Amino acid sequence: MASKTKYIYFFGGGKADGNGKMKDLLGGKGAGLAEMSSSGVPVPPGFTITTDVCRYYYANGKKLPKDFEKVMKEYMEKLEKTAGKKFGDKNFPLLVSVRSGAKISMPGMMDTILNLGLNDECVEGLAKATGNPRFAWDAYRRFMQMFGDVVYEVPKSKFEHALGEMKQKKGVEKDTDLNADDMKKLVSRFKEIFKEGAGIEFPQSPWDQLVGARNAVFRSWMNERAITYRKLNKIADDLGTAVNVQAMVFGNMGDDSGTGVGFTRNPSTGQKEFYGEYLTNAQGEDVVAGIRTPKPIKELENEMPAVYKQLRDITTRLEKHYRDVQDFEFTIEKGHLYMLQTRNGKRTAAAAVRFAVEMVKEKLISKEEALMRIDPEQINQLLHPIIDPSAKIKVIAKGLPASPGAATGKVVFTAEVAARRGANEAVILVRAETNPDDIAGMVAAKGILTARGGMTSHAAVVARGMGKPCVAGCETIRIDEEKNTFGVNGSTYKENDWITIDGATGRVIEGKVPTKEAELSGEFAELMKWADAIRTLKVRANADIPRDAIQAMEFGAEGIGLCRTEHMFFAKERLPFMQEMIVAEDEASRRKALDKLFEFQKEDFKGLLKEMKGYPVTIRTLDPPLHEFLPKTEEDAKELSEKIGIPAEKLWEKSNDLHEMNPMLGHRGCRLGITFPEITEMQARAIITAACELAKEKIKVIPEIMIPLVGFVAELEDQKAVVVKAAEEAMKATGVKVNYTVGTMIEVPRGALTADQVANVADFFSFGTNDLTQMTLGFSRDDAGKFIKIYLDKKIFKDDPFQTLDQTGVGELIKFAIGKGRSVKKQLKIGICGEHGGDPESVKFCHRAGFSYVSASPFRIPIARLAAAQAVIEGKSKKK
Amino acid sequence: MASKTKYIYFFGGGKADGNGKMKDLLGGKGAGLAEMSSSGVPVPPGFTITTDVCRYYYANGKKLPKDFEKVMKEYMEKLEKTAGKKFGDKNFPLLVSVRSGAKISMPGMMDTILNLGLNDECVEGLAKATGNPRFAWDAYRRFMQMFGDVVYEVPKSKFEHALGEMKQKKGVEKDTDLNADDMKKLVSRFKEIFKEGAGIEFPQSPWDQLVGARNAVFRSWMNERAITYRKLNKIADDLGTAVNVQAMVFGNMGDDSGTGVGFTRNPSTGQKEFYGEYLTNAQGEDVVAGIRTPKPIKELENEMPAVYKQLRDITTRLEKHYRDVQDFEFTIEKGHLYMLQTRNGKRTAAAAVRFAVEMVKEKLISKEEALMRIDPEQINQLLHPIIDPSAKIKVIAKGLPASPGAATGKVVFTAEVAARRGANEAVILVRAETNPDDIAGMVAAKGILTARGGMTSHAAVVARGMGKPCVAGCETIRIDEEKNTFGVNGSTYKENDWITIDGATGRVIEGKVPTKEAELSGEFAELMKWADAIRTLKVRANADIPRDAIQAMEFGAEGIGLCRTEHMFFAKERLPFMQEMIVAEDEASRRKALDKLFEFQKEDFKGLLKEMKGYPVTIRTLDPPLHEFLPKTEEDAKELSEKIGIPAEKLWEKSNDLHEMNPMLGHRGCRLGITFPEITEMQARAIITAACELAKEKIKVIPEIMIPLVGFVAELEDQKAVVVKAAEEAMKATGVKVNYTVGTMIEVPRGALTADQVANVADFFSFGTNDLTQMTLGFSRDDAGKFIKIYLDKKIFKDDPFQTLDQTGVGELIKFAIGKGRSVKKQLKIGICGEHGGDPESVKFCHRAGFSYVSASPFRIPIARLAAAQAVIEGKSKKK
Repeated sequence: MASKTKYIYFFGGGKADGNGKMKDLLGGKGAGLAEMSSSGVPVPPGFTITTDVCRYYYANGKKLPKDFEKVMKEYMEKLEKTAGKKFGDKNFPLLVSVRSGAKISMPGMMDTILNLGLNDECVEGLAKATGNPRFAWDAYRRFMQMFGDVVYEVPKSKFEHALGEMKQKKGVEKDTDLNADDMKKLVSRFKEIFKEGAGIEFPQSPWDQLVGARNAVFRSWMNERAITYRKLNKIADDLGTAVNVQAMVFGNMGDDSGTGVGFTRNPSTGQKEFYGEYLTNAQGEDVVAGIRTPKPIKELENEMPAVYKQLRDITTRLEKHYRDVQDFEFTIEKGHLYMLQTRNGKRTAAAAVRFAVEMVKEKLISKEEALMRIDPEQINQLLHPIIDPSAKIKVIAKGLPASPGAATGKVVFTAEVAARRGANEAVILVRAETNPDDIAGMVAAKGILTARGGMTSHAAVVARGMGKPCVAGCETIRIDEEKNTFGVNGSTYKENDWITIDGATGRVIEGKVPTKEAELSGEFAELMKWADAIRTLKVRANADIPRDAIQAMEFGAEGIGLCRTEHMFFAKERLPFMQEMIVAEDEASRRKALDKLFEFQKEDFKGLLKEMKGYPVTIRTLDPPLHEFLPKTEEDAKELSEKIGIPAEKLWEKSNDLHEMNPMLGHRGCRLGITFPEITEMQARAIITAACELAKEKIKVIPEIMIPLVGFVAELEDQKAVVVKAAEEAMKATGVKVNYTVGTMIEVPRGALTADQVANVADFFSFGTNDLTQMTLGFSRDDAGKFIKIYLDKKIFKDDPFQTLDQTGVGELIKFAIGKGRSVKKQLKIGICGEHGGDPESVKFCHRAGFSYVSASPFRIPIARLAAAQAVIEGKSKKK
Repeated sequence: MASKTKYIYFFGGGKADGNGKMKDLLGGKGAGLAEMSSSGVPVPPGFTITTDVCRYYYANGKKLPKDFEKVMKEYMEKLEKTAGKKFGDKNFPLLVSVRSGAKISMPGMMDTILNLGLNDECVEGLAKATGNPRFAWDAYRRFMQMFGDVVYEVPKSKFEHALGEMKQKKGVEKDTDLNADDMKKLVSRFKEIFKEGAGIEFPQSPWDQLVGARNAVFRSWMNERAITYRKLNKIADDLGTAVNVQAMVFGNMGDDSGTGVGFTRNPSTGQKEFYGEYLTNAQGEDVVAGIRTPKPIKELENEMPAVYKQLRDITTRLEKHYRDVQDFEFTIEKGHLYMLQTRNGKRTAAAAVRFAVEMVKEKLISKEEALMRIDPEQINQLLHPIIDPSAKIKVIAKGLPASPGAATGKVVFTAEVAARRGANEAVILVRAETNPDDIAGMVAAKGILTARGGMTSHAAVVARGMGKPCVAGCETIRIDEEKNTFGVNGSTYKENDWITIDGATGRVIEGKVPTKEAELSGEFAELMKWADAIRTLKVRANADIPRDAIQAMEFGAEGIGLCRTEHMFFAKERLPFMQEMIVAEDEASRRKALDKLFEFQKEDFKGLLKEMKGYPVTIRTLDPPLHEFLPKTEEDAKELSEKIGIPAEKLWEKSNDLHEMNPMLGHRGCRLGITFPEITEMQARAIITAACELAKEKIKVIPEIMIPLVGFVAELEDQKAVVVKAAEEAMKATGVKVNYTVGTMIEVPRGALTADQVANVADFFSFGTNDLTQMTLGFSRDDAGKFIKIYLDKKIFKDDPFQTLDQTGVGELIKFAIGKGRSVKKQLKIGICGEHGGDPESVKFCHRAGFSYVSASPFRIPIARLAAAQAVIEGKSKKK
């Protein structure tokens, strides 16, 4: 290192040696302080020791450059001059903080050391100068604790233990209940602890303290936690860290002093108003401790008008400078305002949207920046009712936040009861777990609570699809199905007791609690319009019935990407025909039952196609294993038998015949249509007849027929032939022609691996990433809950692969399949219709991988629209 | 087409215009006839119309070359001269056959037309000349039927219906019961049918018949079935077909005439002896009809010594010419010998081996050719006992041929009874289906019969592994578990009734039936030695216990590719500890139970490693879901509780807790080891301790530890760390060092997709193609039986993908994974240990894909050795 090298950069007094761009040399924090200081923001003065020094330190056997101590002393003198106080002064000493600060913010490195410069003499001076001995001694003992821990590795717990003993001795609970004397005694005790642990007396020389702290920062660059963090995040080891030494300021120096926090705009509502609170003659900690009640920041205007004006000016400038709402901390020391911290403020979803849209109007940020400011996942909060934040609540249990929204209702324990009563009163369906039989009850209930199952259990998936609040896997509740009660932590809740669930947080709350409806504000709609203008990925909805389709259109869907026809078969008046079809012993009786279902299906499809007003509607042929439609127990079979007139024995025998070891990998999807072509034929006929009848009324329709679970191109060939034949017959019968396409789901790995063959026959692909994830990872969604938590804990994977697409594994296979598919059909339309279609990261992956559209639950459509827009913006900035 | 082009090639009279190489022009059949004829084999004379003519026909709007009729007439005259008969002659007409014949044999094209040239006059002449009016009229009506169907598309069924009516009218069952008069009447009726269908009278001009047949052959080249076949098999449409016109000969022209069939060597035993039978004054059909008993061919030596000598000379020459045993048909017409057909003869496995080895010794073929002559699958027959072919048997049912071999024993219905009695008497275990609990009973029984499950059901897989006869999925038997009986077709069989099963054919036979033991002849051993010398792929065995290892070594295994440690836990004296481990509520109690299992495991591994005499032994850590070790019903739980002293409630509750919707995709494989590292640790300690103890005795050991079901490299990292730590501790404790490796199964698609990451950590890969097939295809092996048959019928796939590797899908993924794996570790050892390791086509795939070894059930090792050798030979011939 040449002797001309500048080792240290000063900041303070409205000036700075460095600037905000010098992050490599000054670290993020140092560059920020320099930037603020030189742009006239009053920050407590200080200096930054550069990362060059750190690199020198490691390159030269942990030695510093020659003369470095001398240079540092010069800067300390400059600091004393600027601050108007002397380091080690017995009357009113300059105290400093010492902080590390690398280019990239990095947990695992040294904590801050505050109040450095205190010793047995200075502490008395500080006590006198502030008129607050308790504060002075408390500051001293805090400094000793930090210094001991960080610089000499004296276990923090030993200091804390001593503090605990003191409180016990005094019979008090809070640190704030200890007085100046107690603190003084603690300082004595801490000195013993320090000596015991460090092997030396606590250093009384402020300069030695400073040197020790500085070296500790350098050492912390190479501690184990920091190295691991850099390894995981691919940060180079030779960046090095800077060291920031900054004067401490005090807000408890009299009535012309004070401290406060604030926001440049209201972080809760988003309103453009100066927002915050402060205390006069107080320290930052006093605000936190809650002993004195802070005053609204507006009152500062009366108390210290000049300071107030300065604060407003500064924070307004900061907001402009950082081009975002600032969350700031300030201290007033004897009439002088110091900004201690400023950062982008945290905000509610509603506020985030309002900030972003208003800042575009103020020309502070571009529309693209506004879009990037919103976390798509956060939007969820805006789309569902929430628990009134002002309500007093008693949380009785916590489960998984399976489907957002708050709901209040009376407890019922069976889907049947829910279905019967749900139309006229608010009920919450409480079940161990749900299954497809429960659909009607789930539709009727205000919300669903289950004791078992994960984020992708049946209850969770279906509830999200419906946009209905659901708390799943609430394992602390014990349901007694015979008594119709559930118990939790010793309390018992009966049928008809009121409860409230919050599907956004997983909370289960006792009684009736007021909720607030979602309100899609004007700003929200505007933001979405911007997103739509920028995105190239289309967004469709997974919707099975006209009501869902209407909801989807309201949320901005551009078509239906997945209509699961089987959901239609579970309705009360249809299920018997489905069951009749399943137990039929030959094709003729099967066809008879199918003929009855045909009319229902046709009407369903007409409804859907009509609601979608000319947008494409992708309808999947029957997918689930047939045993899902049959009774699960012998008793159920008997009960059903009485209702529908099929002998119980026959029902039960068939149910047993159809039992499978691994239904996920069993007789389902196109395998059904291949073994019973008449099912596919009926469905195709219903779809095309519906389309033709609408076409006759001059309504535009785009039906797309989708064959599920294709692994072999021959499967698709087989089913396509059946569809085409049925479609031609339907068009002949109605005398109208409509355009339709026949595509396939790619959800079996083999389908992806042979996508070129499949693309020769398919008009479109839709990746069914739920099943594709199950099969590619070998994880059953129903069972993986048992070990997925452990996998997340052990970091075997980062996210639950059923929530966020596994881009390394499943994503690789998808990209492979797209490449193969488009190698034979360049313009092949490609979509996704698994749960991932509504997950922001997965949506972005789809954009990058060249998808034509994603399809998501109606309530996740806005999220997908925003994520799709962000993907475009991210792609542009990457290219730059 | 130039006028000089030769349109027609003649053959006959010991000469031929063409030769065997001219398949492009003459088709396969025409070239063969030319070759035989010119090499002096007396074939009935004839001529071949070239494929050029066919191409001309299609290129010129279905017109033939100018003057073609004239040329064809010339050739017909030549044929008449050679045959010594006239076409259309009223006294003894020349009759001909007309056959299509493309370069590549192709189903879907025109059938043969025989007896062409007959009309109302000629038939009378033929009747007189042969002295056999029934034959003549029968020949005529057959010709009419073939001609009507092929040339004029008169439905075959109409003729057959008339034939049926005639038989009904006469009150007879067989065609042969109709006399000459009946046939004559049929001819009249056929004329009506022809006229009705074709719209014209049946053509009486032999020339018109010939022209019609010729054109029909040309047309058949472009019929739908032929086009589809060519498309599927990628055969060019412009190859065209040739037309063969050949004189018919008759063996029923008196005592100097006759007909027969034979083999150049005994196709049953393989002995080198002239073998066959014949009838004098008879037609080929008479042999088939079984009215007269044919004579052994040796008697021909006495009856017609010159003809016999000629026949022996010709067939000996044919065997040399075709370099394989010939299966031939001949006819003697008035002392003249004609060869009608010669082809490579079908043979038993034993004969095939003997033929091949002896022909090498006779220097007729090379060793490589000998190896290519044997169908590896056929070898199976040699390795297992068979039902004595001379025994009279009563087949009572037929199931799937799940594991070859014949076994006789008394019926028992539970694994427990089988286990108890099997040591002292022959029992056959009859179950609805088997599960892992039944292992002990399966070991003790002579054979296994199940009512449910496919070729890859538990019973089938385990039985094949043990080399034990098994008939699976015998759905016609109804087991009554309460009465201990099974019924089939109205009969009932009780416990202790004798039955016999034939696992090679799927037959279930009543009573005790004599069986013949397998005998691995000297020729077999010799052939295997040749295979070993040529193959490069190693062959290992799947073996769990020392007894299997010994068997595997006898069959030539070069190591163990898969030892499933869980099979060891099902033994009676161990299961309780396993169960104790599973129900344990904390790590400490789990470790206590594991410590007890440790000793068992260590001894098992010592036995295996010792038997394998320095060959590598790959041991897989625990794989199956834990619920497989727990009782399946509440009653079982009670029973077990009494035995092992764990409360029934606890056992049953745990069993319920562990229940999974899709156990195949559930908590198993390395997921167990990750949640309960102490299990992996115990197993690794047992393996390495065993290895160390043997190493102390100077016994060479190569243990390879294999982690199952890895989808994420982090899983393997986790488990490898556990193994390495345990291994180091074991070596420290024993004071010996051994070399060991840690590899992984690639059986989850994600593992294959990320094989480069995995290879960074794995010492070897072993493809678990059972699971990989299940997950890649999305087929549960346990459930797919329900639709796989339909898939095979509909030709959605060619082979059961659980028996023969799906090379297009799963194979593609395997090749992808090998490429990725070897991209980071060039010498990575790669094996396969699914069922496919013993399937010949799959073994060949493995060779081509660059595998290091395959691992198969002991009884399939010789099959794999042969297939591996064939793969090398096929590879060489492809390169040529």
